[in-house]
Amino acid sequence: MGSNSFGKLFRMTTWGESHGEAIGVVVDGCPAGIELSLEEIQKALDRRRPGKNRFTSPRKEADQAKIVSGLFEGKTTGAPISILIPNLDADPSQYDAVKNHYRPGHANYTYLKKYGIFDHRGGGRASARETAARVAAGAIASKLINVQVTGFLKQIGDIIVKEWDQEVNESPIFCPDSKAEKEMIQLIDQMRDEGDSVGGIVGIQTSPLPIGFGEPVYEKLEAELAYAMLSIPASKGIEFGAGMLSSQMSGSTHNDCLDETGTFTTNHCGGTLGGISNGMPLEFRVSFKPTSSIKKVQMTQTLSGESSQMKLPKSARHDPCIAIRAVPVVEAMTSIVLADAFLKMSVYKNNLSD
Amino acid sequence: MGSNSFGKLFRMTTWGESHGEAIGVVVDGCPAGIELSLEEIQKALDRRRPGKNRFTSPRKEADQAKIVSGLFEGKTTGAPISILIPNLDADPSQYDAVKNHYRPGHANYTYLKKYGIFDHRGGGRASARETAARVAAGAIASKLINVQVTGFLKQIGDIIVKEWDQEVNESPIFCPDSKAEKEMIQLIDQMRDEGDSVGGIVGIQTSPLPIGFGEPVYEKLEAELAYAMLSIPASKGIEFGAGMLSSQMSGSTHNDCLDETGTFTTNHCGGTLGGISNGMPLEFRVSFKPTSSIKKVQMTQTLSGESSQMKLPKSARHDPCIAIRAVPVVEAMTSIVLADAFLKMSVYKNNLSD
Amino acid sequence: MGSNSFGKLFRMTTWGESHGEAIGVVVDGCPAGIELSLEEIQKALDRRRPGKNRFTSPRKEADQAKIVSGLFEGKTTGAPISILIPNLDADPSQYDAVKNHYRPGHANYTYLKKYGIFDHRGGGRASARETAARVAAGAIASKLINVQVTGFLKQIGDIIVKEWDQEVNESPIFCPDSKAEKEMIQLIDQMRDEGDSVGGIVGIQTSPLPIGFGEPVYEKLEAELAYAMLSIPASKGIEFGAGMLSSQMSGSTHNDCLDETGTFTTNHCGGTLGGISNGMPLEFRVSFKPTSSIKKVQMTQTLSGESSQMKLPKSARHDPCIAIRAVPVVEAMTSIVLADAFLKMSVYKNNLSD
Amino acid sequence: MGSNSFGKLFRMTTWGESHGEAIGVVVDGCPAGIELSLEEIQKALDRRRPGKNRFTSPRKEADQAKIVSGLFEGKTTGAPISILIPNLDADPSQYDAVKNHYRPGHANYTYLKKYGIFDHRGGGRASARETAARVAAGAIASKLINVQVTGFLKQIGDIIVKEWDQEVNESPIFCPDSKAEKEMIQLIDQMRDEGDSVGGIVGIQTSPLPIGFGEPVYEKLEAELAYAMLSIPASKGIEFGAGMLSSQMSGSTHNDCLDETGTFTTNHCGGTLGGISNGMPLEFRVSFKPTSSIKKVQMTQTLSGESSQMKLPKSARHDPCIAIRAVPVVEAMTSIVLADAFLKMSVYKNNLSD
Repeated sequence: MGSNSFGKLFRMTTWGESHGEAIGVVVDGCPAGIELSLEEIQKALDRRRPGKNRFTSPRKEADQAKIVSGLFEGKTTGAPISILIPNLDADPSQYDAVKNHYRPGHANYTYLKKYGIFDHRGGGRASARETAARVAAGAIASKLINVQVTGFLKQIGDIIVKEWDQEVNESPIFCPDSKAEKEMIQLIDQMRDEGDSVGGIVGIQTSPLPIGFGEPVYEKLEAELAYAMLSIPASKGIEFGAGMLSSQMSGSTHNDCLDETGTFTTNHCGGTLGGISNGMPLEFRVSFKPTSSIKKVQMTQTLSGESSQMKLPKSARHDPCIAIRAVPVVEAMTSIVLADAFLKMSVYKNNLSD
Repeated sequence: MGSNSFGKLFRMTTWGESHGEAIGVVVDGCPAGIELSLEEIQKALDRRRPGKNRFTSPRKEADQAKIVSGLFEGKTTGAPISILIPNLDADPSQYDAVKNHYRPGHANYTYLKKYGIFDHRGGGRASARETAARVAAGAIASKLINVQVTGFLKQIGDIIVKEWDQEVNESPIFCPDSKAEKEMIQLIDQMRDEGDSVGGIVGIQTSPLPIGFGEPVYEKLEAELAYAMLSIPASKGIEFGAGMLSSQMSGSTHNDCLDETGTFTTNHCGGTLGGISNGMPLEFRVSFKPTSSIKKVQMTQTLSGESSQMKLPKSARHDPCIAIRAVPVVEAMTSIVLADAFLKMSVYKNNLSD
Repeated sequence: MGSNSFGKLFRMTTWGESHGEAIGVVVDGCPAGIELSLEEIQKALDRRRPGKNRFTSPRKEADQAKIVSGLFEGKTTGAPISILIPNLDADPSQYDAVKNHYRPGHANYTYLKKYGIFDHRGGGRASARETAARVAAGAIASKLINVQVTGFLKQIGDIIVKEWDQEVNESPIFCPDSKAEKEMIQLIDQMRDEGDSVGGIVGIQTSPLPIGFGEPVYEKLEAELAYAMLSIPASKGIEFGAGMLSSQMSGSTHNDCLDETGTFTTNHCGGTLGGISNGMPLEFRVSFKPTSSIKKVQMTQTLSGESSQMKLPKSARHDPCIAIRAVPVVEAMTSIVLADAFLKMSVYKNNLSD
Repeated sequence: MGSNSFGKLFRMTTWGESHGEAIGVVVDGCPAGIELSLEEIQKALDRRRPGKNRFTSPRKEADQAKIVSGLFEGKTTGAPISILIPNLDADPSQYDAVKNHYRPGHANYTYLKKYGIFDHRGGGRASARETAARVAAGAIASKLINVQVTGFLKQIGDIIVKEWDQEVNESPIFCPDSKAEKEMIQLIDQMRDEGDSVGGIVGIQTSPLPIGFGEPVYEKLEAELAYAMLSIPASKGIEFGAGMLSSQMSGSTHNDCLDETGTFTTNHCGGTLGGISNGMPLEFRVSFKPTSSIKKVQMTQTLSGESSQMKLPKSARHDPCIAIRAVPVVEAMTSIVLADAFLKMSVYKNNLSD
């Protein structure tokens, strides 16, 4: 497949299947001399970890990472950083009941048609488990950039965050609005009870970025972020600043103007101009479709081509809203894109001033 | 900057400034033996060409392309295809009046801050002129893939396409709905009169794709398309299938099921599963912000940091809705992504069956 | 550093330091459906393994590899193949005596000057230990191509292989000439006794390659092989076919002609024309400098810049001829280059014939 | 083919066939603010230009380059630099007489077998004409690095440069030894008279490089240079410092030691340690085979598979020693590799010191 690496100068390669003995990531291109501890990586993994509360997949994984190379006396050496995360709670029997079906909304359809094989035991590389490796790499990336990246659950169903009255990390579902949080939890519980699922929108808000992240033409900051976000399983769209609504605005409304102190008075552009960060916070949103694996009856075909109903058995693990667990993944991918852009910037800014 | 190439196996490198003597593109990786004529490239360029009607930029460019390498007796040879497009109507005096201002919503802010230089005469590489080179490359890409790619203007302001009652190419603004077209034209004319601009949404609808375009994990088809689309100047978002609305749907509604004949009954996913095309048409939408260069007074700063009002002079060229001209560019980038995915597929499908 | 990956379509990323707990490799881009067993990888590693006889480094490593991803029921799945090789006999005290010296002929000089840090305990990424990971990847690559790659020790000192009277693998020093082998062993023993070392030349001879490996212009087969070979520690040159001696030949002598059956009567070109394999065996030679770590007194400086004599202590591990252990590494890199070229070929040949 | 780009951060893409209307190069990644004039590029091209004296190909080309993008007021802008070089003296009838033959030692054999097509009129992309584009890019690269790169003809036949008693550029064959030059000219004239050709060795000697060019593991400076040099048509080998002879040396002789002032007393390594420049001049040699196109009778086959004698007609252009014209190309590729390494270095050195 040959498509398991991400980034140009700050580059990660992830490996491992959801039902193998471990997954992992190799980060190449991290400069030497960066302080880094296992605790920082573990902390990031713990935010994403399944099974920690009832709002995510019941799969229980300790996600105890191990750094096996690239660190010496608490600092990066410039050598590739290899991180391993053992799989503990892989339960290959989970999906036995449906292994002969094309599962509606699921990658097993295209994998089987394209490659002729699919590991029915849990999704292989298409599994959300792969995103744990991204989160580990994101923890390293975040050490390179001096930017605070905050992800949050902005919407599920028709419940939308309105006020920002609590810390995102205080919420088990990463929701900053205590009122919306309650309604969201109610909806998630209802979906779980019904064996159904619901989609959601993850928002990103960063501290003001230094000017200069992003390259002209094809490596614009939005382009790199869009590439990163649409590679996350179940993501279906991304919008920056005013986003899809830009289409309804006039230029005189949309243009972000500078006030007397040289500060932008609005951030309709979401933090970039011409693909390059303009000194404002980065603002974008990523939409996630509802989890495809549900316990309701659906029409499909068997692998041998017969029309058939199917539903996941009651005992199967079931994640009613994948958007929750996506929050730390969206954060991680943001940091990774920014770390890569930061290194690119150092090439061309550096030489300019010589 | 080092970011002027796009694609991995089907790879284009564009060059040229909006006010230089020419722009161009080198396409590397196009297989040998593909029939290709200058007419096909010219036809694609003519769709995008500015100045052909009152709905786009008044800059008049013949956009007469020239193929200078890679063709022999009407077929590609496998060697790089180099295409030149002369600039005829570059008018460097256009923006003289505002050359000492940071232009609201414009890339000159970030370019000047990052690189210390910006060619005020017309945007240099950040200019929409660069997209002509993409359209030329897209015409080549479209010969590699057996897919019909149709772009259309789906929305400007709050006017949305509802019915599909005319050929897109019959409409000067690529609008398939004759009623919406009339309202859109009215709005565009109004914006031009007011010296203002309006955003818009471009839709893409393809013929059913063969199964197998797109690679797992980071090179998912949506990820590659998102990367391509967000590299187009003024784009601010992309959504596939149900897109941002997926967040409001339940799994039992969103999942595309197979009917008795093995056909998907819906296309909420927009044509991909697990990042790989599933045999359905590709469906996505790209939003464009309103053109930033307007003739209304706006607050900004001069390059030397003084607060100042500015507006473009009456005589300046003005493009009231950049989304119109974006239609052929979105089409071209779609074809280029598909051509690249097609070549990637040939590596791994090919070897599988050996 | 960001330079730990090799290959374009068949791509490996190696990681790990000589004194960490493990080293490893991730192979991305290996097609699905290739039969692969741990035994095949182990067999390749065993050929390179240090400490197996007195002719190589006394470091004792079991080099017991573990495949942690990418295999399912004995076949590759197309997912990245991650291989771990634990370090057992890392002895950090080995080089304590010289840790404050720039070691003549050694990478610690440039690493310290460039990065400010160097892991004196054993060479870090510059260590020959890294090549074990290449050998593991090479074993996978060799399964993709139907080519027999034979490496052998062609020369050390002034002793040159003349006759080919024994199997390379029967010789503890990979020498196919039993008479030369005896003299070489004598020379190696002498060097060990003197605490000195000697350089050597590794030859590669393959079975006839299919026509078509290698791409025009920059990705010529020789260019890719030269890149691969000169990345092996201690290599100082490469020549193909008549090689450096081509300079002394006339065209009428050097040109390889076709006989009546369409067979080349000579192979002065070493198996390629215009960078593409021509159906003949690949023939090239790689020279290795003598191991820089010796037990003789040499002039150098301390890290603080004082002139100082130094020699490795008697007890230190010492490898009298690194060229011997390089044989399986040169073989592995050859297979990896060929596997990558094979996948590239499948893109463009495949499409040509459509 | 997809293999017409070279370099990672300083990246060139060449295009054009020997018998098309022009060839060219796009250089992407050159930082902004570098002073650059057409004269500098033209001067480099003039050194390589065919037809300027009797020692190279009689093809007469003015090689008048044109810079069509990337420059503004005498400085690079960071945008891609596009250079065009028209073909004037393309004579398609030159090779008509042999168009139905596999030409011994020539790329038409492998191109025809691999791609099914070959432009018999002059070699297409396999032609030495492509190297003019490299020389133009090399002239840009040389502005980035503060290194003097001197190429010279070191050997043809058995005539070897011994003394360095004249400026390389004073010699029509780039030979620094006036005595050897006379003998070489005699040999070349003899080869021309006989319709035969001879190989040669090109040497490179640079001013002392700053420490730090080159990356660990796969992107070692020697590896990048070897990749570059073996991509030049007709090159068959490369060796650094003591090179192939390293194999015959002992470690105690080969190791370059530091004297009391911290200066290396020898340069057996050729200027690198562990793949990174060590502050010494870079020293390497590249061997070129004799031109394959000769006017002597040789056995071969026709394209339809019949055994046949062939020789080039008397009137055909004939280049008795391609190594001469290779000198500026080897220089150019050296500068390009160094420019790329220089930019890479800026990423990791820069961040280290933060």
